[in-house]
Formats: sequence, structure tokens, C-alpha cells
Amino acid sequence: MKTVAFGVDQPHGQFQRMDIERREVGDNDVLIDIQYCGICHSDIHTANDEWGGAVYPVVPGHEIVGIVKETGKNVTKYKKGDRVGVGCMVDSCRTCDECKNGNEHYCDNTVFTYNSPDSKLGGMTYGGYSGEIVVDKDFVLNIPENLDFAGTAPLLCAGITTYSPLRFWNIKDGDRVAVAGLGGLGHMGVKLAKAMGAEVTVFTTSPSKVDEAKRLGATNVVISKDRQELKKHRGEYDFILDTIPAVHDLNLYLSLLKPEGALVLVGLPEKGSSYNVFAGALVGGRKTLAGSNIGGIRETQEMLDFCGKHNITADIEMIKPDEINKAYDRVIKSDVKYRFVIDMKNAKN
Amino acid sequence: MKTVAFGVDQPHGQFQRMDIERREVGDNDVLIDIQYCGICHSDIHTANDEWGGAVYPVVPGHEIVGIVKETGKNVTKYKKGDRVGVGCMVDSCRTCDECKNGNEHYCDNTVFTYNSPDSKLGGMTYGGYSGEIVVDKDFVLNIPENLDFAGTAPLLCAGITTYSPLRFWNIKDGDRVAVAGLGGLGHMGVKLAKAMGAEVTVFTTSPSKVDEAKRLGATNVVISKDRQELKKHRGEYDFILDTIPAVHDLNLYLSLLKPEGALVLVGLPEKGSSYNVFAGALVGGRKTLAGSNIGGIRETQEMLDFCGKHNITADIEMIKPDEINKAYDRVIKSDVKYRFVIDMKNAKN
Repeated sequence: MKTVAFGVDQPHGQFQRMDIERREVGDNDVLIDIQYCGICHSDIHTANDEWGGAVYPVVPGHEIVGIVKETGKNVTKYKKGDRVGVGCMVDSCRTCDECKNGNEHYCDNTVFTYNSPDSKLGGMTYGGYSGEIVVDKDFVLNIPENLDFAGTAPLLCAGITTYSPLRFWNIKDGDRVAVAGLGGLGHMGVKLAKAMGAEVTVFTTSPSKVDEAKRLGATNVVISKDRQELKKHRGEYDFILDTIPAVHDLNLYLSLLKPEGALVLVGLPEKGSSYNVFAGALVGGRKTLAGSNIGGIRETQEMLDFCGKHNITADIEMIKPDEINKAYDRVIKSDVKYRFVIDMKNAKN
Repeated sequence: MKTVAFGVDQPHGQFQRMDIERREVGDNDVLIDIQYCGICHSDIHTANDEWGGAVYPVVPGHEIVGIVKETGKNVTKYKKGDRVGVGCMVDSCRTCDECKNGNEHYCDNTVFTYNSPDSKLGGMTYGGYSGEIVVDKDFVLNIPENLDFAGTAPLLCAGITTYSPLRFWNIKDGDRVAVAGLGGLGHMGVKLAKAMGAEVTVFTTSPSKVDEAKRLGATNVVISKDRQELKKHRGEYDFILDTIPAVHDLNLYLSLLKPEGALVLVGLPEKGSSYNVFAGALVGGRKTLAGSNIGGIRETQEMLDFCGKHNITADIEMIKPDEINKAYDRVIKSDVKYRFVIDMKNAKN
């Protein structure tokens, strides 16, 4: 089965309209008519082969929402016309301990939504910058009826990437949470932490983002370009969600935590770069420095239901497929509030 | 009230017999006839002013066990003749949130057992290399009757420093725990993790320690001098208790953790030295890098009761006070199995 897609055939290439193959709908499969797909920074890293391992053409996209068009005979959970989503994974081994515990993203054989060996069709997987996708029912998510559909797309990656660590470190009513960096991940972190009852502070280098941060739910904003400003907040936070995708002074950030607080990285700096960490910054107050990346399918559904309950979606700028290259340039310059979403609904003919 | 003590009057000085002042026994105080005191590496750092802030004479010692000699009128929990212990702290503010939660070691006004401003008598506190000590009842611990008394002394610091992180990260039956380094802290970590039901692996650079590690309770031993040997154990451990007091490759150690595993530093490297940490070593499997240091009074009692139940004490070498300098030299060379304890019982006349 063929469908339209938008991909690149080399690093830093122009996105082109192309036809790609999708597998026939199997007994456990759901055929999804893609409506919207978010642009994640990972898409850019992969399209440009910055993490290595890109196989061209690359068709990115793992923040996918669409309408069920057809289902296999074993699929009872979804029916034609349902609003569904697909995130970063489309399959895993299902038998290892990690899969059994709902942590498919830790499986050694996770099939990622794009640029991952496609165990069913052969070749590599193609993502959501496309007209249709066929996904095993167990990797399809249900989208709450009340949520704006396009704004929901980024929840499938940016949403779960920020929700999962907030849950893992048990953020609750009254906790003091700081969100470092106010981009695609950061703006979701603010909304989610606020909805969990936390008092949210945003660390941003841009004085121009103060009002934005407050609109999104922050109670306080600290201009983090100024080390002295940050130092005023020593020992104040239970948790820091660190979305900054570049090397910065983690010892300073660790000093802002309360005893037994956690600083969790969800942004990755340039490949090969590392952080300097003093043992003393961790030992004295039993501080945690950790990282976190997406979440399992069960928790992704939990996150979507949580967003449904609190009416949370991403703030987006909608674009057409022929604007992807321009959008990439703007993402690289952090010039987007806060996520681009590609309108695939109107791009199929 | 005067008592005998053994202290130094300058960095790298010889320990000398001296008289020190103890306060009169107040209404809330317990006067303890010190029987044994362990030698902790922190004693050496302070005696030699390696961490800064030493005020001479320094009388170290925070692994103290002794017999109650007298009690103030408000003391109902202890009576003359009881076996008691004192660890790293002798007082705190009692009113801050940390104190209220049993985390007196995170209080901003903790009074440490030695070389800490003495809020009651003035001057600096003097530790357990001495004949008697007067301590507020709330900072006195009960020693289970069945435990060898001298071997219990090191539990007051080395014991709680290893017990507390094992509990905080919820080590339980069947967990795979690695203990890196087999010194004073490491040998306690092995015994405690084993008693909690974990399968324990020891990482040691010394092939000569394999039998020792197994005797202490380890199921497996990995010779960590060889990176290739370590790499064979990728993704195997739920928890690594890292007691190595020198900079080493934490990215390699982090790779040995299972997803969501924790590597916890309880050893401090040289002042000013730092670790290089790759964000990728933390983000992919949501790994934790943390530190931990001693524990609160409530948890220290819990640890002692746990040791009583499992009949756990430290393996010690007993010395006389005139052997302290020689013992320090051997600790610095890691030449002790596994903790020196000073016999104060027979050193008072």
C-alpha cells in the first residue's frame, strides 16, 4: 500500500514529496489517516544524521495524531473514525521484563517510529510526515475527545518526555518545581507540573519570556543568564526539570535543590560533550542527577488521559509540508512558540 | 568537668594525650563513659585540615560506643549502665523542617561531634578519642544487647552511611547490588545489602580481595582494574554503592546499571576534582547518579536495630591510643580490615 510522505534523501537536504510503502493491515493492525504531526528536535537530528545511523530517505515524525481508517480482525479497542495517536515507538519484543513492566522504551528491540529497522515490512520505518501509517494496536493511543487535535500531537513525545519524570519523582501538590529552558519540552513541563499541583519556577536566559512563562502557569521566573540571580535560590527546589540542550553548570543547578531533591536532564547536549560534576554537589544533601527519555505505552496513555482531564495541549504553530525546512531553521534558532505541527490533513492530494 | 583525650595540635601532628573540658550534665544530657571509638577517614581529613576549617587541638572520633554513667533529670530513655552510641552529630536546631522530618544532618545548624562550634560549652566540639562525653539524650543511640561492642562502633558512621542509601533506594529481596571498593564503607555495604536480601557483587581492583569479598557476603566479584571485565556486566545492576574515594569513570559504571538503576557515591574524591558525566549515560535508561552522606538519628537507630536483628558488626582491628598515628598511615594506604577501633576502655589512667 502506498502513501504520500515528506522526507529527505541526504543530511541537510530539502524535504520532498515522495511515495512510501506501508504494510497491508494485519490482524492486529490499525490503519491511521494522519491528520497532524509535530516537529520534534530529534527529527532534525535524524534528518541531518547528527546522531549517526540515518538511512535515507528519512521520513521523520513521532508526534502523530489521526483518524482510524481500518482495523484488523483482532482489534477491538479501536474502530473506524476514532481519534488516535502514535508516539516514538511502533513495536517492541513484548516478552522481556521491560516490556512486561510497561517499559517498552527500555526493550532491546524497540521499533522506533522512524529510521528504525522495520521488523514487519523490512527496510526502515517511516514516520508521521506522511499520509497514512499502519501500527500494531498495542502501540496506538486513545486521544481524549475534548482535546484540540493538532495541539495534542506534541504530547506524544514532548508531553510524555516531561510527564514521565514528573511522575517518577512523585511531584505533588505544593512541591516546588523549576523548569530550566522554555522551549517545546519546557513549556509542556510548566503546564504539566502546574496541573500536578506544583509551584512552578521557570529558569530562562531570555527576559522577554517572563510574561510567557507566567501565562503558561509559572509562579516565578528567574533569569538564568545571571549566575548571581540563580544563586539567590539555593536550596529552594524539590525538583528541576532541565530541558536545556547544551552543556551548562550542573553544580550550580544542583545547589538550587533542597536536600534529597532531583535534577533531571531531558535535553541532550551536543554529541561527545560532557558535564563536570562535583561529588560534593551530590553527597552532602543526597541530591540526584538523573536523565529521562519518553515513557512506556501505558504511561503515555495515562499522560493523555491526564491532559484530557486538565485540558492540556501544546501551544503550536501550524505549517504546511512545504514549510518544513523553514520550520527546522526556526527550531534550531529556538524561534517557535512552542512546537511546529504539520497539517497533513490537507496535504494528501 | 575534665576528661582525657587524644588529639593533634597541628596538621599531620602526632596524637598526644591531653585534658579537655566537658560540660556539666544538664537536665537533658547523658554522660557516657566511652569504651571504643572507630577511626573514620573523615577523622584523618579533619586532623590534617584537608577539608579546611580545622581548629586545633582537634580531637576526632564520631564512631563512639560507651556505657551510661549519669543522666539528667529529663532523661527517661537511658539509665546508668546502658550500652549506648554516638555518631556524627550531637545536636541540631530541632525546629526546622529537616529536623522535624528526622533529617538532622540536613539542618543548617547541625552540631557535629567534633570540630564544630559547640553551642553549649563554647569553643569547638571534641569527639570520641576521649574518656567521656556529654551528649543530649536525643542524639544518643541505643546499642542492641547481642552486638559485639567494639565492632558496633563503626556502625555509627560507616554503618549509617551505607545503610541509608540502600534504604532510600529501596533495596529488597532479589535486587542485584554492586558495591564498588572494599574498604571500611564497602565491607559494611556488602553485609547490609546482603542482609536486605540483595545478590551482592563487589567491584575491587585487588584480585587478593576475592575471597574476602565472598566471606563478607558477596556472590560475585569483578576485578575492576580491567575495563573489559566491567563491560561484561552492562545493564546488570539495580544499584551500585560507590565507595571509591578517587575520581573514576562514572559513565562506565552507569552503563552497568539496569534502566532506572541508581549509582550512589558515598566516597568523596580529592577536593576540587570533578567527574565527567555524559548526559546520554543518564537519559537513555533514566539512570540516577546521586550521592549520600550519613543519615538522621531516627534512621541511625533503625540501622542499629537492623544490625542487631541480623547480628551485623564491622570487622575491626583494635588499637591503643598511642597507635593512632600508625593507624592513620595504614588507613591512607587502605591497609586495614576493615576499620580501626581505639580501645578507650583501658586508656583512661
